[in-house]
Amino acid sequence: MKDRAKDWFEELRNRLVATIEQHDGSKFEKKHWKHSGRGGGMMSIMKGNIIEKGGVNISTVSGKFSEKMQQRIPGSKEDPRYWATGISVVLHPVNPNIPSMHFNTRYLVTQKNWFGGGMDITPCLEFEVEKKDFHKDLKSMCDRHDKSYYPQYKKWCDEYFYLKHRKEPRGIGGIFFDYLNNDNFENDFLFVREVGSFFHTYVDKIITLNKDKNWTNKDRELQLIKRGRYIEFNLLYDRGTKFGLETGGNTDAILMSLPPLAAWE
Amino acid sequence: MKDRAKDWFEELRNRLVATIEQHDGSKFEKKHWKHSGRGGGMMSIMKGNIIEKGGVNISTVSGKFSEKMQQRIPGSKEDPRYWATGISVVLHPVNPNIPSMHFNTRYLVTQKNWFGGGMDITPCLEFEVEKKDFHKDLKSMCDRHDKSYYPQYKKWCDEYFYLKHRKEPRGIGGIFFDYLNNDNFENDFLFVREVGSFFHTYVDKIITLNKDKNWTNKDRELQLIKRGRYIEFNLLYDRGTKFGLETGGNTDAILMSLPPLAAWE
Repeated sequence: MKDRAKDWFEELRNRLVATIEQHDGSKFEKKHWKHSGRGGGMMSIMKGNIIEKGGVNISTVSGKFSEKMQQRIPGSKEDPRYWATGISVVLHPVNPNIPSMHFNTRYLVTQKNWFGGGMDITPCLEFEVEKKDFHKDLKSMCDRHDKSYYPQYKKWCDEYFYLKHRKEPRGIGGIFFDYLNNDNFENDFLFVREVGSFFHTYVDKIITLNKDKNWTNKDRELQLIKRGRYIEFNLLYDRGTKFGLETGGNTDAILMSLPPLAAWE
Repeated sequence: MKDRAKDWFEELRNRLVATIEQHDGSKFEKKHWKHSGRGGGMMSIMKGNIIEKGGVNISTVSGKFSEKMQQRIPGSKEDPRYWATGISVVLHPVNPNIPSMHFNTRYLVTQKNWFGGGMDITPCLEFEVEKKDFHKDLKSMCDRHDKSYYPQYKKWCDEYFYLKHRKEPRGIGGIFFDYLNNDNFENDFLFVREVGSFFHTYVDKIITLNKDKNWTNKDRELQLIKRGRYIEFNLLYDRGTKFGLETGGNTDAILMSLPPLAAWE
């Protein structure tokens, strides 16, 4: 199960990288990194023509949780050892008509094991029609697995990606899930793969539709301000960022999510 | 004592604003804001020719600490009421040869009362000579009050303005102090005023010396990257930012410190 999850995340990375490189005409640069425990990962970073900054990071790591972490992570109270594999993607496009896109899925093994992940979209211009389509398609995909997934995971996403101090959501939401284990690895793994394939298809589609749309200086300003909010969220609230920086994770890989340029009013 | 502290912070604000406006040729825009308890403040914001973004915020507020805060704040265990007045300043200049400059001083009253504050400087280009001068002058000023101040407050500043995840300091340091109360309000207040006057003089001096120096695109890039680090510090570590956002403070005033434009590699 560990190998199959790991292999899928690699395959998905390859597909995403190939699709984005084809659109962009630039290549991702790959960088290996080592975990402080065992294992490590590979970041693929692009600064391209369509993707101003894009990162795809896969990692497979293992180690022992600190006592503090043992209290928080399921299945680790009696045995601090963990094993984890995952993929995370952040795309910050040049064209303000293409939203910033974020996705990740992971498989964690302690004395329990589960999948987690999600995706969410952050446009900076009018996006009402696209928002409806995105959520409709996401619901269809989720519903094929379990009718309870979409409402539950959408709500989780909305609650998670909310900037309390601004009283505003980070973007238009998506889905967010964790601790997914229905005692049926095949079904859960199929869902996780479909979440990944959905994101891959969505990236391809939204770039194709919007990459040739014109934009103004004002649109660019709005984009830079929205990116500022994105940074506020990631540094003030994001669990993964906090967890990673506190546990001595790879700073470059963790902060890969930050946009290349951002503005504050 | 409360009135005298409050009046001084206003006077210092007026002096700083006048000096910066004279250099810049632009005017600060003033915005009143109200505190969720009692009182409020006034932000003075400039987006100018020399100061790309500058903010001077003064506030005088009172209220009751939450039970959690009562445990943390001296003199509030038995009575949650507080009164506070202060000034904070952040300047992000256009010219990469002028460093970003940060300063604040405050007077807090619970069942105890004390001054706190400090200043620190964040250059993005070579600044070794200026760094030496800055620290030498700062030490002289501190030494006139108490020989123990400079070494103690410099150390506090170095420890505070450190980005653990980057293993690098935010800038070249300065001084940082808190809970200053020697049972002699006159002496403590004189020190606080001299700290403010020192900053005022320093701002005037460093702008005068460096405002006409040329810079390259590469210097601008280094500046934007350094500003990214500045943002990382403020959102990940800064006590004032965390305290302010958690206690429902004025978001615009709290995040006034963020630079107008920043980059990540």
